[in-house]
Formats: sequence, C-alpha cells, structure tokens
Amino acid sequence: MQEKEDWESRKRRAYERIFRDREIGYLDPDILPTLEAFFSWPNIFTKSSCSGRITVIDALMPWDRRNSTVMFKDHLGVTTAELEDLISKGALRRLWLVVQGPIVHAYAKDLNSAWELLRVCRSVGFKHSGILTKNANGFLVEVRSGVRMDHALYADRSENSALEKIVEVANEVLGKGKEKLNLLTKALQAYKLEQK
Amino acid sequence: MQEKEDWESRKRRAYERIFRDREIGYLDPDILPTLEAFFSWPNIFTKSSCSGRITVIDALMPWDRRNSTVMFKDHLGVTTAELEDLISKGALRRLWLVVQGPIVHAYAKDLNSAWELLRVCRSVGFKHSGILTKNANGFLVEVRSGVRMDHALYADRSENSALEKIVEVANEVLGKGKEKLNLLTKALQAYKLEQK
Repeated sequence: MQEKEDWESRKRRAYERIFRDREIGYLDPDILPTLEAFFSWPNIFTKSSCSGRITVIDALMPWDRRNSTVMFKDHLGVTTAELEDLISKGALRRLWLVVQGPIVHAYAKDLNSAWELLRVCRSVGFKHSGILTKNANGFLVEVRSGVRMDHALYADRSENSALEKIVEVANEVLGKGKEKLNLLTKALQAYKLEQK
Repeated sequence: MQEKEDWESRKRRAYERIFRDREIGYLDPDILPTLEAFFSWPNIFTKSSCSGRITVIDALMPWDRRNSTVMFKDHLGVTTAELEDLISKGALRRLWLVVQGPIVHAYAKDLNSAWELLRVCRSVGFKHSGILTKNANGFLVEVRSGVRMDHALYADRSENSALEKIVEVANEVLGKGKEKLNLLTKALQAYKLEQK
C-alpha cells in the first residue's frame, strides 16, 4: 500500500503545483481545461505543459538550446511589426521563427495506463507521442503532435519580402495547435466518461 | 521457448528484408551501418528507417499527409536551381521546404531493452525518442532527434529573394542530421562492445 499512497500524494502535489504556477504566471492561461482532463484519469497526472507558442530565436539551428537566445516568445501570436522590429536588430547567428504545437508531459502510474493514454492521444492526431522514460513518478509520456514550423529569417529586411505572409502562416500554424489541444481535451474527457 | 523463437525469427526476417529493400532501392544508401549497429544488439531489430531527407511539399500545413503532394525528395540535398524550378511551377496550396533528420523505428524484445536503447539514443542527441506502442514484434521505439526545418516558400519567385541562403541552411540542417546519425551508429556499436 505504501507505494500506492506515494504515487497518489505525488499526483496531489502536482495538482496543487498547477494552481501555484497559475498564480505566478508560469502556466499557459489556455491549458488549464486540458490539464484538468488529464488529472480526471485516475492513474495519470501532468508535470509540465505548453499550449503552443511562437518564438523567434537567434541560433545556428532551430533545435539548439545552448548557444541560442530567445528574442521573442508569445502564446497568442506574432505581428508583422514585431517581426520587423526583431529583424532590424540583426542576429549574432541566425534568426529562426519557430512555432511549436502543444506539448504535455504526463506520468502514468502503470504501463497499461500509459498505453491507454497514448491510444487516446494518437486518435486525435498527437502522433508523435511516446513513453520517454520511467522514474519514481511512473511512466513519462510525452504528448506531442506534428504541428510545427521552423522558418529561417534573414537579418536584412529586404530579404524577407514575404514577411506578412510568413506571419499569417505562423499564426495559422499556432491556431492549428490550439485546435488540436481542444480535440485532446474533449477526447480525454470522453474517455473518462466511457470508463464510468 | 516458442515465444523466444518467434521473436528471433521475426528479427531474422527483418534483417533479410533490409537487403531485399537495398536491392530494390528502397533503403537509404547511407543508413546500412546504423541498421547493422541496431541489429548487433541481441534484443533489438529495426523495421523502418530514414537517414534524413529534404522534401518540397504542396500542402496547407507541413505535417499534412492527406491533401498534400510531394514535389521533390532527396536524401543528399537540394540546389537553388531545383527550388527555383519548383517555385516557378506554382502550388495548389502552399509550398513547404521540409528537412527531416534521421528516424529509425526499432523493436525491443522486452521493456528493459527498450529503456537501454532509449538511454543510448538520448545520450547522442536523439532526444525526441520514445516508445510508441507494443505489439507482436515487441516494444516499438521511435528514434528521432530535434533536427528539422519546416520553411514556408512562396509561389512567386520574387518573394523568395533569399533563396540561395535558404538552400544553404536546408543543406546544412540535412548535414547535421547525418552527423547525428554517425554519432548514433558509434554509440550503438560502443554499447555492444561494453556488454561483451
């Protein structure tokens, strides 16, 4: 019984953390219903999440974390004026416009719960989801879709003549991520009802 | 013992398949040493793989599979002339220049082998690797790095004024993927030696 209580108390602590994060402003404002849906599964809790965002980074490659600087970050979108402003400042390395879809890191108490979660997530298009590792919290499931854009920008404004269109596409990509997040929330809620 | 023989014979068939695929031209020519390294692990075999590639697709979104057309595909790179030619033909939806890093789908006979494989893959930067599912072949591990580029192109040549630079960056991204593939091959081989 000890182990079970341990896991339940980890889940409880993770839940309380969400509301502390929300007060500090760490939590993406639009992701709470999704996290509640994860927590409604008896054997699942979440540890970190992102509802999707647009960043502009100064890096040689868009996946570089070291040797990179985040110049802009927003969960709701970007404007042409913001992008022009960033471009006019120039870059040490290269400027990348990166749109990331929603990502949730969830822990499953046991392997069967992890498979069930993966099945539901994949059914609504989160097809890059998988179990990353196992630790004291359980099986870590990364929930991730294919929604993404990694667009190379140029330090010279004249070389980004289609900037308005790029901004339009980037915001549309971000929007597709939010749509998928809503589908995920609904699928997680429906599954829970199914089990009752 | 029956189950063990079953798995071994699945592994043997998967191995033979690689060489049939190679003859037909289905196998990426530069990935064979990597696959050999996977197969050198007693409890692992691979089912599908890509050494990394550049594609140009006509789609609303770069992750769309349905409602999309592959206009160009090459595992070695792209030239400005090729891209100009594609752009001049126009697009039904949107043109995306997509660079994908190496991806391998491997099966592990048991969960412990899957964790070990994930640990080694992650240690050389394949940090988006995870267990996708479980089936008769074992635990399916997707081995994938963050190497990727999804760049929006425009149907009007004049709007792609930095095309030479985009081509340079895309080929560099592809090259980074091949470097990571070499690191992976070496890490898989080293691990096998360690176990002897």
